Amino acid sequence: MASLEEISAKSRLAEEHEGITFDELRLASRNHAVPQEALRSDVTPAGLHYQLTHYDIPYVDPADCRLTLDGLVTRPLTFDLAALRALPRHTVRVTMECAGNGRAALSPRPISQPWLNGAVGTADWTGVRLADLLADADPTAENGYVVFTGLDHGIERGVEQDYQRGLPMEEAAADDVLIAHEMNGAPLPPQHGFPARLVVPGWYGMTSVKWLAGISVQAERFEGFQHHAYRLRQSPDDVGVELTRIEPRALLVPPGFPDFITRTRVLRPGRVELEGRAWSGWGRVARVEISTDGGATWADATLEEGGLRRWAWKRFTWEWDAQPGEHSLRVRAHDETGRVQAIDPTWNRGGFANNADQPLPCLVLDD
Amino acid sequence: MASLEEISAKSRLAEEHEGITFDELRLASRNHAVPQEALRSDVTPAGLHYQLTHYDIPYVDPADCRLTLDGLVTRPLTFDLAALRALPRHTVRVTMECAGNGRAALSPRPISQPWLNGAVGTADWTGVRLADLLADADPTAENGYVVFTGLDHGIERGVEQDYQRGLPMEEAAADDVLIAHEMNGAPLPPQHGFPARLVVPGWYGMTSVKWLAGISVQAERFEGFQHHAYRLRQSPDDVGVELTRIEPRALLVPPGFPDFITRTRVLRPGRVELEGRAWSGWGRVARVEISTDGGATWADATLEEGGLRRWAWKRFTWEWDAQPGEHSLRVRAHDETGRVQAIDPTWNRGGFANNADQPLPCLVLDD
Repeated sequence: MASLEEISAKSRLAEEHEGITFDELRLASRNHAVPQEALRSDVTPAGLHYQLTHYDIPYVDPADCRLTLDGLVTRPLTFDLAALRALPRHTVRVTMECAGNGRAALSPRPISQPWLNGAVGTADWTGVRLADLLADADPTAENGYVVFTGLDHGIERGVEQDYQRGLPMEEAAADDVLIAHEMNGAPLPPQHGFPARLVVPGWYGMTSVKWLAGISVQAERFEGFQHHAYRLRQSPDDVGVELTRIEPRALLVPPGFPDFITRTRVLRPGRVELEGRAWSGWGRVARVEISTDGGATWADATLEEGGLRRWAWKRFTWEWDAQPGEHSLRVRAHDETGRVQAIDPTWNRGGFANNADQPLPCLVLDD
Repeated sequence: MASLEEISAKSRLAEEHEGITFDELRLASRNHAVPQEALRSDVTPAGLHYQLTHYDIPYVDPADCRLTLDGLVTRPLTFDLAALRALPRHTVRVTMECAGNGRAALSPRPISQPWLNGAVGTADWTGVRLADLLADADPTAENGYVVFTGLDHGIERGVEQDYQRGLPMEEAAADDVLIAHEMNGAPLPPQHGFPARLVVPGWYGMTSVKWLAGISVQAERFEGFQHHAYRLRQSPDDVGVELTRIEPRALLVPPGFPDFITRTRVLRPGRVELEGRAWSGWGRVARVEISTDGGATWADATLEEGGLRRWAWKRFTWEWDAQPGEHSLRVRAHDETGRVQAIDPTWNRGGFANNADQPLPCLVLDD
């Protein structure tokens, strides 16, 4: 009889020239990317924000759900949905990205959710500040860890588990970390964590546990499965480095119109305003460069003014005098900490944090 | 210099053992399927309904958009969004499916949007009855054709085009055909046709033109590009048969919990209520069969009572006494017209209407 180990796929790399597998296709068809033209919107419209679900989207009866905060605290807390909604509300605009964004562009390709470059989106998240909940509960562990448990349950690499992640207390209690129950002014959609989820601005999405059931304070560092899975490693035996914050990336709104199958862009010649969005979880975006010749030459795009919203992507524009012929559009984001978007992918075994630009092919017509 | 023909992919079939291509992956990551666990809901939650966009999702300024009804009519009509919303409202619950659903399970596989079996969803569409609009405009062509033009523009097989489809007048003026401006009680999301779209219940989705800009009555049969594309053919030279209504299909809500990568289902032994949804565009669902042994034996599921909603999928249930070991779950829908869901795929070059069941592998544990 088959065992869990047999039905649960081991970590592996694609063979040279191995096409996308049906396991990968199955994941790609459930876990969707943002269509790149939706980058025109400050806030990603409902249903277009990327989403990744490790197991199933839980089916939650709002009348039954409870969120508990317990562990090393003076006052354990329990909330039903009405109680959670009645707490003081904060709204934060956050650009969220999956740590695996860019994985399918690596060579060799790690077999997992095969993201190209669209595992991103920006939403207005509304909820209660986690720092306020923690203050009410009054943790008794100094410099402790906070563990978040979701209702999503499944098997991964042979291990049955609830999805869990931990954060050091100082990260969990940071300003703008929310237990969110609304997305863009409406209750969370099922696929984004209904009834409530963690939102940790600036961190890759794996941190922001969805379908939140429990929050628990403990003294020891939390070392759950997902902390071993989300690491930058060169081989399976490496200790590796844990993923935390989002590396800088820029994406263009594709100009012109596409071919249905190849998605090559087609334009009429003349002036066209290129636009896009850039973000980094480490600091504000300070500069975006654009190339229309595949990276041979670069020009500085104009960054939008303002930037009051610390955690949201920033719009950039650049006027292109598009001449007939084939062109390859590239972009490169820099942030205020000096981090620069990669030109070529930096390979790692899990396929994480590949922020290398993926050139956008364009054909400018003669007429 | 490259031409439109060179950047626009020709119709082709995958080679034997050719993995999913990057062109197909790019489409799969933008055009998402319904996650199968969402089949638990009568109405598919926002953002989970399947969606297919041939070109780009148009970015529409609601203040500027106009819908015209012209051609062979006594009174041409023009509506802005406010005028359209002010017309008498009808709501119809419709299960919509892409004609290409099941394409990626064919062998050889036609290279296009690589749907497995999730290109489906059910929504409450609200808008004005097209029959009422047509009556106001008063067509002067007897037995004419109605042509629908979307704002989506792109290249397909080398041909630059606006997305267009036509319907014979008798189909266009049928009860329940809507010009919809709401989905599930909210304005249409961008990816589902904002500000307004056609909804033709019972027909495959290619008929229900999104981002509707124009409706025009003409005397001749409309023979646009999409009418040549959406045909059942054995070879590229066949005249073929146009696709119209949705073939019967049933899908299970996957029981238990999944492995992240393989999506194999894992269950504890014991009684479990299997449930799912079944639909047909030709007639009401009359019977659903279930097999837990890969199709060796079949049992009749219990269909939900009622069925007042002619165009929505029907829930079915069946109690399974799950014994330890490996199982392969299958389903088969029958409709009142005698059409039966296929057990094995019926191949055609476009990869359309493949309603063959795709078995669901399950592992029931010992404990």
